[in-house]
Amino acid sequence: MTIAADPSHHELSVDELTARLGDLDPMDIAGRLPRLRQAMAEAECDGLLVTSLTNIRYLCGFTGSAGLLWVGGDEALFVSDGRYRTQAADEIAQGGAEVRVEIPATADGQREAVAAAAGGAARVGLEAGDVTWARVQTFDSEWFPDASLVPTGELVEQLRLVKDAGEVQRIELACAIADVALTRVRGRLLDEPTEAEFGLELDTEMRRLGAADLSFETIVAAGPNGAKPHARPSNRRITDGDLVVCDFGAMVDGYHSDMTRTFWVGEPTALQRRMWEVVEAAQAAGVAAVRAGATVAEVDKACRAVIDEAGWSDAFVHSTGHGVGLDIHEAPRVAGTVDATLATGYVVTVEPGVYLPPHGGVRIEDIVVVTDDGCRRLTSTPRVPHP
Amino acid sequence: MTIAADPSHHELSVDELTARLGDLDPMDIAGRLPRLRQAMAEAECDGLLVTSLTNIRYLCGFTGSAGLLWVGGDEALFVSDGRYRTQAADEIAQGGAEVRVEIPATADGQREAVAAAAGGAARVGLEAGDVTWARVQTFDSEWFPDASLVPTGELVEQLRLVKDAGEVQRIELACAIADVALTRVRGRLLDEPTEAEFGLELDTEMRRLGAADLSFETIVAAGPNGAKPHARPSNRRITDGDLVVCDFGAMVDGYHSDMTRTFWVGEPTALQRRMWEVVEAAQAAGVAAVRAGATVAEVDKACRAVIDEAGWSDAFVHSTGHGVGLDIHEAPRVAGTVDATLATGYVVTVEPGVYLPPHGGVRIEDIVVVTDDGCRRLTSTPRVPHP
Repeated sequence: MTIAADPSHHELSVDELTARLGDLDPMDIAGRLPRLRQAMAEAECDGLLVTSLTNIRYLCGFTGSAGLLWVGGDEALFVSDGRYRTQAADEIAQGGAEVRVEIPATADGQREAVAAAAGGAARVGLEAGDVTWARVQTFDSEWFPDASLVPTGELVEQLRLVKDAGEVQRIELACAIADVALTRVRGRLLDEPTEAEFGLELDTEMRRLGAADLSFETIVAAGPNGAKPHARPSNRRITDGDLVVCDFGAMVDGYHSDMTRTFWVGEPTALQRRMWEVVEAAQAAGVAAVRAGATVAEVDKACRAVIDEAGWSDAFVHSTGHGVGLDIHEAPRVAGTVDATLATGYVVTVEPGVYLPPHGGVRIEDIVVVTDDGCRRLTSTPRVPHP
Repeated sequence: MTIAADPSHHELSVDELTARLGDLDPMDIAGRLPRLRQAMAEAECDGLLVTSLTNIRYLCGFTGSAGLLWVGGDEALFVSDGRYRTQAADEIAQGGAEVRVEIPATADGQREAVAAAAGGAARVGLEAGDVTWARVQTFDSEWFPDASLVPTGELVEQLRLVKDAGEVQRIELACAIADVALTRVRGRLLDEPTEAEFGLELDTEMRRLGAADLSFETIVAAGPNGAKPHARPSNRRITDGDLVVCDFGAMVDGYHSDMTRTFWVGEPTALQRRMWEVVEAAQAAGVAAVRAGATVAEVDKACRAVIDEAGWSDAFVHSTGHGVGLDIHEAPRVAGTVDATLATGYVVTVEPGVYLPPHGGVRIEDIVVVTDDGCRRLTSTPRVPHP
């Protein structure tokens, strides 16, 4: 098992970071539809109507908030409304996938365009994990009255599991933005900011550094609030004696980062110190268990064993991690109950935590990309408890 | 037809705004489940499994990212996972709705708890506009094998149409945050910021002023970018000769605001001036058409008539408006093809626009609350074209 040396993004200058953001490698968008068609054939579908906007973005590069992608055996058609006339044409041409774009004047026009493209498809796949029951009824009665609708599993999500080099680059740059932002603002934790004030500083810094958006609503949870894994930043002041859980991330070209660090402010109690050390050891054990061929249950077990040993089994109340990419939470979930095996190119978080109301919580999280013989961390902020 | 005088939030001091945010009136959360049960009876459901997290928030006050609410004839049960043990109990107790909370240790435990609560319910409603096809299959085979699943229309969304006083207060305060933020930063438009820089200033100011979050991804679209109604802020510098579309909002306690103003920087061309004046007149006509009893098609027509008259029918490429509340886009959509009548307490946007590539775009948008004889604007920034 090999773990590559941690990167040192957190030491990047703003200029270096900006230069890297301005020089993104292309992704292999054009190669995705052919792979999807293989999966469709295995699922015995003549065509697939993609409703998930994230999957549409993956397959053709469209980033807007409304549209449908029809993928037939040898042609693909994207339809949307007038708001996206220019944007859809531009983005899809730039992505390079072989997808025709139509922007009909009405919703009925979208139905007619897709129906025409679908022609005599007998078995039409729908993404069962995305499409709503109401849409299934409409597609069944109005869009494809003569076809059989087939609930498909995660056909596109399965393709998304293995990230190409361009995708890893984007996730790593998103991580770098978060690393640099934390480096620049962490000292402020000693100035008694409120959770909300410190969260806003982190968020603003990530955006100044070039984040297209925040990856998710930043968590800054101090003292007893830290015992709630998903607490929202409050007006509570961060003061001596607090453990402070900071969980945050940036977005680059649609790709997310995700990192958690827990700091102690002032002198820790013996309990706080032990919580921090146990979680740090659990996280290291989890990362050490990540390699191509390992199951996610093995990674989960590696983390959980350390926490169990400390007597805190009941205090680790969530999964060990999750995939990250175009969604902040995507497959595979890293948990003992999940049947999945890691492969080279998967990107997952490892984020054990211990939550002890009313004392607070500790969570430490990195993102790693799976390699043949181990993994490489994409987040780089040192795992130390001092702000 | 009466339109109340515009409020003057944009002139509020930060202290006044902060004081109002610290003194929110309660909402009538407890009254919502009884109204839902009436709607369930009309839909001939013995129970409803609410999957929409927004609807769950509306019905019981829970604000987290995972959970299910079972509403039976005389009891209601909320289930979630360990991350939300403390938060769910606190929020639901505070909301005052009669809802029991269970946090089982496993996903199977959630199924068992809901099945026990559902007892012998013969007809179980699911929210067809929210529940995915995959979940319908799981609920059918594993959760409710002996019941008939009933696809329900927008039962909770229909309740949400009419806002109570506490809801209107929150939306109005979210509008006030956006108004004050724009007042404080608009002068910066003359300093040649990039779209992204100006967007970040607006966003940061809204959060400093107390926004729990942004209402949606802020749009700052200058020059030719303004011709794309949903453009993302770019690194293009805002310079003399630009029309600049600014569309943004804040959130207060889950409720959204939404406002668009379009400014010209430097001296406008005759075309730019006419675009602005036509859209402003269209927007005023739309607001003047809003009253209890008016149809949304009438409001749409009032806006569209002004733009048609100017010869730009094809350049107004989106709906006239939408409802706003716990969702940034909710019922009713304000469009010519929608069959809906406004009632007192509805909150909708009126936002006509004209988009002329490559010259740019103009959109002007306010939020109004419908009253018996007209409406009241909740956004207050004056509709003037100068930054």
